[in-house]
Amino acid sequence: MKIGIAGLGLMGGSMLKSLKKRTSHKCYGFNRTKEVLEKAKPYLDGVLTEQNLKDMDILFICMSPSAAANYARQNAPFLGKGQIICDICGVKEYVVKVMESIITPSGAHFVGCHPMAGKEVSGFDNADARLFEGASFIITPTQNTPLEAVEKVSQLALEMGFAQAVKAAPQEHDQIIAYTSQLAHIVSNAYAKSPTLKKRAGFSAGSFEDLTRVARLDSKMWTELFLLNKDNLLTEIDLLIRNLKEYGKALKELDKATLTELLEVGNKKKLEDLFRNGQ
Amino acid sequence: MKIGIAGLGLMGGSMLKSLKKRTSHKCYGFNRTKEVLEKAKPYLDGVLTEQNLKDMDILFICMSPSAAANYARQNAPFLGKGQIICDICGVKEYVVKVMESIITPSGAHFVGCHPMAGKEVSGFDNADARLFEGASFIITPTQNTPLEAVEKVSQLALEMGFAQAVKAAPQEHDQIIAYTSQLAHIVSNAYAKSPTLKKRAGFSAGSFEDLTRVARLDSKMWTELFLLNKDNLLTEIDLLIRNLKEYGKALKELDKATLTELLEVGNKKKLEDLFRNGQ
Repeated sequence: MKIGIAGLGLMGGSMLKSLKKRTSHKCYGFNRTKEVLEKAKPYLDGVLTEQNLKDMDILFICMSPSAAANYARQNAPFLGKGQIICDICGVKEYVVKVMESIITPSGAHFVGCHPMAGKEVSGFDNADARLFEGASFIITPTQNTPLEAVEKVSQLALEMGFAQAVKAAPQEHDQIIAYTSQLAHIVSNAYAKSPTLKKRAGFSAGSFEDLTRVARLDSKMWTELFLLNKDNLLTEIDLLIRNLKEYGKALKELDKATLTELLEVGNKKKLEDLFRNGQ
Repeated sequence: MKIGIAGLGLMGGSMLKSLKKRTSHKCYGFNRTKEVLEKAKPYLDGVLTEQNLKDMDILFICMSPSAAANYARQNAPFLGKGQIICDICGVKEYVVKVMESIITPSGAHFVGCHPMAGKEVSGFDNADARLFEGASFIITPTQNTPLEAVEKVSQLALEMGFAQAVKAAPQEHDQIIAYTSQLAHIVSNAYAKSPTLKKRAGFSAGSFEDLTRVARLDSKMWTELFLLNKDNLLTEIDLLIRNLKEYGKALKELDKATLTELLEVGNKKKLEDLFRNGQ
């Protein structure tokens, strides 16, 4: 197949590198910043242009929601019937609605995607052919998405090294991702704000590292994703705050039994989760 | 040297295994549960008893604060002049005060310690000779602690594989640990309580794993540690809640500029921290 990748940052770059390493598909890439495109050229079979866009079997637009919509709007005139166009944005309900409205009139099929992999660093230089190994590739089809398109993209995801391709309604995706990914980034970012951070050298181990790893993030990109999933994310933030307050209250009142019970409930939920997921 | 280890759980067991693997010190162990002591015997040069306690150059009491104090009380009559007795509890101000009052009259020297290593699982079976590699060993001397005792314990920590031995006042230790370790366990435990947890299969990646790893914990032990560090921990919990509320408010008001700024401040603090710590 001919695969187009528009946007060669961490995600697009990792897709390119993994496709070249693991498959014989031809890859065509585009990046707004010329310097990045130059760096990617050794991996590319060609540059993705308005002229050859119609030849791509599958096109991945690997940009933030607003940039992806802009790119789609500018390039919709050059798309052809039956082509598959995918985004990889971390929120789906809003993005899928917008992208379908832009793409569908061209006769191409839009398939909403979210590769559940990432790093706390960005850019083509950090792109990694092995980024997707063991990860989940989420596809969010709608009533407008042909089954064959979903199957084709699923298959390609497995070829890139993803462990599984999972289907979900865009709304369901957004509700779950607010918890598993967005809340994690907010909590980690907030965690790094204590003035005690400056004294932690020599006094920290794995739990501190884990809690603050994703404090490092692309503020603009995440702001965009958070705002597009406001209600789900607020629900999770509010719930976490309510739960944290309970530990605080038990602690303040030196209520040993309640504090133990609060911790034991969390412990059991985590153990059940590990059991459910065979870990 | 002859090293005594009372309590052969994850920490005591890992000390034993690392000492046997990396040094030629003689190790004597005790554990209340006989079954565990039997498992440990292949690693031991002998069982630690009331009779041979006085022969130990250094004794590590590897138990929770209350169990450590009980053990010390019962065994103080069998300690000798100049011996070094260490605890390994995760809180120090209270524990050091209590342990010094029990140990010092016997003529032995008490050295408060906190090995900054751990796992989310416990017990001798999970003990690991390599657990301490790269980790920090904190020692919290007081005006009653002879310098030679501190040096001897520091040296032994390095022999066990710790990357460094760090000295701190007990109060300073507790203030920092409330943030780097205790808060992490509470946040992780609270994080696991969202009902969305049950839907996360296929929708989660590293950030979820990191945020919930230490949700799994020994509720009773941590309750004891948290209550002994109440004020410091409450300060950190309250601060985190205030910070989380700010993200929530900006999100609710669709205040893009403020949300970006909040994320950028956290991002910068994490980057500065990585820079300060050469990571």
